[in-house]
Amino acid sequence: MKEKELLQELKEINLLQQALGILDWDIQTGMPEKASNERSEVNSYLYSIYFSKKIGPKIKEAIHYFSEHPDELSETGKVIFEKVKEDYELEYKVPEELMTALTAATSSAQVQWQKSRESKKFTDFQPALTKNIELTKELIPYWKKDEATDYDVLLNQYEPGMTVEILDRVFDQLKAGILKIRQTINEKGQEPRTNFLTRKMTKAQQEKFVVGVIEQLGYDFSRGRLDDTIHPFMLGINHNDARITTRWNEHDFKMAVFGVIHEAGHGMYEQDIDEKYAYTPIYQGTSMGIHESQSLFNEIIIGSNRNFWEKQYPFFQECAEGTFDDISFDDFYRSLKKTQSSLIRIEADSLTYPLHIIIRYEIEKMIFNEGVAIEELPEIWNDKYEEYLGVRPENDVEGILQDVHWSGASFGYFPSYALGYMYAAQLLHAMEKEQSIDEILASDDYSPIKEWMKEHIHQYGASRKPTQLIQDATNEGLNPQYLIDYMEKIYFSVYQVD
Amino acid sequence: MKEKELLQELKEINLLQQALGILDWDIQTGMPEKASNERSEVNSYLYSIYFSKKIGPKIKEAIHYFSEHPDELSETGKVIFEKVKEDYELEYKVPEELMTALTAATSSAQVQWQKSRESKKFTDFQPALTKNIELTKELIPYWKKDEATDYDVLLNQYEPGMTVEILDRVFDQLKAGILKIRQTINEKGQEPRTNFLTRKMTKAQQEKFVVGVIEQLGYDFSRGRLDDTIHPFMLGINHNDARITTRWNEHDFKMAVFGVIHEAGHGMYEQDIDEKYAYTPIYQGTSMGIHESQSLFNEIIIGSNRNFWEKQYPFFQECAEGTFDDISFDDFYRSLKKTQSSLIRIEADSLTYPLHIIIRYEIEKMIFNEGVAIEELPEIWNDKYEEYLGVRPENDVEGILQDVHWSGASFGYFPSYALGYMYAAQLLHAMEKEQSIDEILASDDYSPIKEWMKEHIHQYGASRKPTQLIQDATNEGLNPQYLIDYMEKIYFSVYQVD
Repeated sequence: MKEKELLQELKEINLLQQALGILDWDIQTGMPEKASNERSEVNSYLYSIYFSKKIGPKIKEAIHYFSEHPDELSETGKVIFEKVKEDYELEYKVPEELMTALTAATSSAQVQWQKSRESKKFTDFQPALTKNIELTKELIPYWKKDEATDYDVLLNQYEPGMTVEILDRVFDQLKAGILKIRQTINEKGQEPRTNFLTRKMTKAQQEKFVVGVIEQLGYDFSRGRLDDTIHPFMLGINHNDARITTRWNEHDFKMAVFGVIHEAGHGMYEQDIDEKYAYTPIYQGTSMGIHESQSLFNEIIIGSNRNFWEKQYPFFQECAEGTFDDISFDDFYRSLKKTQSSLIRIEADSLTYPLHIIIRYEIEKMIFNEGVAIEELPEIWNDKYEEYLGVRPENDVEGILQDVHWSGASFGYFPSYALGYMYAAQLLHAMEKEQSIDEILASDDYSPIKEWMKEHIHQYGASRKPTQLIQDATNEGLNPQYLIDYMEKIYFSVYQVD
Repeated sequence: MKEKELLQELKEINLLQQALGILDWDIQTGMPEKASNERSEVNSYLYSIYFSKKIGPKIKEAIHYFSEHPDELSETGKVIFEKVKEDYELEYKVPEELMTALTAATSSAQVQWQKSRESKKFTDFQPALTKNIELTKELIPYWKKDEATDYDVLLNQYEPGMTVEILDRVFDQLKAGILKIRQTINEKGQEPRTNFLTRKMTKAQQEKFVVGVIEQLGYDFSRGRLDDTIHPFMLGINHNDARITTRWNEHDFKMAVFGVIHEAGHGMYEQDIDEKYAYTPIYQGTSMGIHESQSLFNEIIIGSNRNFWEKQYPFFQECAEGTFDDISFDDFYRSLKKTQSSLIRIEADSLTYPLHIIIRYEIEKMIFNEGVAIEELPEIWNDKYEEYLGVRPENDVEGILQDVHWSGASFGYFPSYALGYMYAAQLLHAMEKEQSIDEILASDDYSPIKEWMKEHIHQYGASRKPTQLIQDATNEGLNPQYLIDYMEKIYFSVYQVD
């Protein structure tokens, strides 16, 4: 066995993965409704080829050989081999039929989810969700290493090293911090004026603005594209093809503007991965949490910065063709940071956002560690919203049907959003030791920010673990206090609390 | 070997073909520009899996077994097996590397073609075209059976049974007929008024109209979709996913209106194929000529009908929101059928259209039978346009770069368009023996037309050959006189020639 042979096999596996990515993109951006059954078969079949290669004889042989002859690998080869070995050990025990069944189930569940959003009834999605949960529960024993609980196993799929024990503690600290800020604002804060936020801005006007902004931030359209979907996402096919989607509301420009800036952060991460990792399992973001740190850095850290908006506001006004000419910059900026309890996660403001995640975390823990009955979930969901945020969904589209994740069996994914937010604030703190983000965002050239991220995070792809990246970039482990401090600074300033 | 095993293998081959179809759709509808190299690798690899199965040991075994035990096949199984055997005999001699190289070459040529359209220079496309021609010439000896010339081999790929000998004769008759009609019109005809055709109609207004029209004609949007591309096409993934594309010009509504009606004809054919052929090589149109007969029946036969437009004109006026309120129906209808020499095939009127095809036919014959030098092609192209149509392209985008076909190495394809047109007129003649198309198009229900086509053409997919379909549907073989008579009737009426 030569390194070259291993790389050729990994390349074929990666090419199949890229094809599966495009098929999935097509499902989500406009496959004809009645095509879903045949498409399920296409995806399942292709997945079965992919999966049987991924845990196939060549990979097995390579693992045996290079475990005994590590010195025959190049430096890059060693890093790639470590990831291959890790993935293999995670997956080789899983029966191929089970993974094929899961692919078919999620493909069909996505269609059911979209239908249930039209009928607004969880019961139309429940059978598909139940199937996804059952198959995931069947998979857990195959994935399990030394994790303390079943849900820990799922967390580890998205954020290696993350546990229920850590999250219970970190989320407690974060929740307490947020509630304290909310209380202070309620008592002493000056509410920003926001009545102009619903003024009509056409899709074309919004698109002109946000496309211009993300190009300035560093998203490369010659290696990406922007499409429309119900639930926005980024799909990284390879570093020359990192696509993003959004949805538009002509009477709520904030949705698409911040949504696109968010997805562009994911896209920039993928576009910056070092080409030397092409066609290998390293050629992707290292974890969902780190991925979210990049999208949330764009959306919240940059998107809450006063200097950033002071610079962009004239361009925004120009794109809006007069609609906001009577609004002062100060009023405009403060309106963007109004905080208010909401029902929909992706429309939530940056103060209440983590509470949405904590609710999903608690429910997923109930599903996988406490055996809750699926039909009770909408009620549980609604009760938690009422308790934590003081609002209650009137139907399931405003509640449990709002997110696509469970239709893709992505259980354990949600906590990544809050982890990413904490990482983003911590990265900002580290970056500020070297350069002033306020000064950069007041200038014509934002590239030093992206360069810092490329140097410390992006370039590595999945060759380094989240814990190592955060430790190396910030000189300490995960610390939720940076986010609490950051939120306090922004919200006290906007709400004019002394 | 059981029939079930054969069908399972054919299903896997078909699933790979569906995946390749989606990948190609993505390339043409918006893949990021810089993604083309990696995508070439994805397509080549997937194609190599597809192709090695298509001529692989299971198919080989099935051919041996069922050639000796035909009675063990069901009725449908026999029809499928015949097609499999035929395809196999065409392809098994071809080295896999050669087909893989062609897939890579065409994938890259499509990108080069699009770039050359921007630079307007044939020389930017010439290396890719030369490569496509060289690889095709390498393939011809493997495909050749008893055809008289190399170009006959290519014709047979798209229209089984078609020869240079037949086409030379039929095209001579057609050319003479067209020239005679043009002469009569020039001498005695009344030119329709057309100055209002360039009035602005937004994409949204055009889309509303044409989507409404093709739904009435029978195109099913729950099993299809409409996208934007430079060169319009239909892609049949399966009978639940037959997609179409168009391009729009706000000052030339005719382009998208007739373009979409055309592509919908292709789509309706694919959507109507009997589901019993699903996941087999029968699950597609039988030939390019028959396919074009369906698109041109929609676009030209229905789209030239006075009663059809009399019925649709109020809806058209409504969609145009007042823009055409001052135009009488008679003026409007006559304007649609104005004939005039043009440079672009897909913008040509229905009288001069076959001349565009005859030019391409003659050039392809020169490439494959007469060894013409590739760099001379733009000059030859331009000379022929001047000679046959009296117009000369000013640049290559108006000339030899206008069509996508050669970038996909689809040599021998163009004649199908003229064959389809002749078939369409012949099918109309046969249909009229049973029902009056004028009466149907004056009514609220167009379905009898589609039902007739479904019964005589669509349902069979590729289970019957073009010659048999035409013979059975019209009780005779290909006869170009029906088209000449049809064109004379329409154009003499519009041009008010007695």
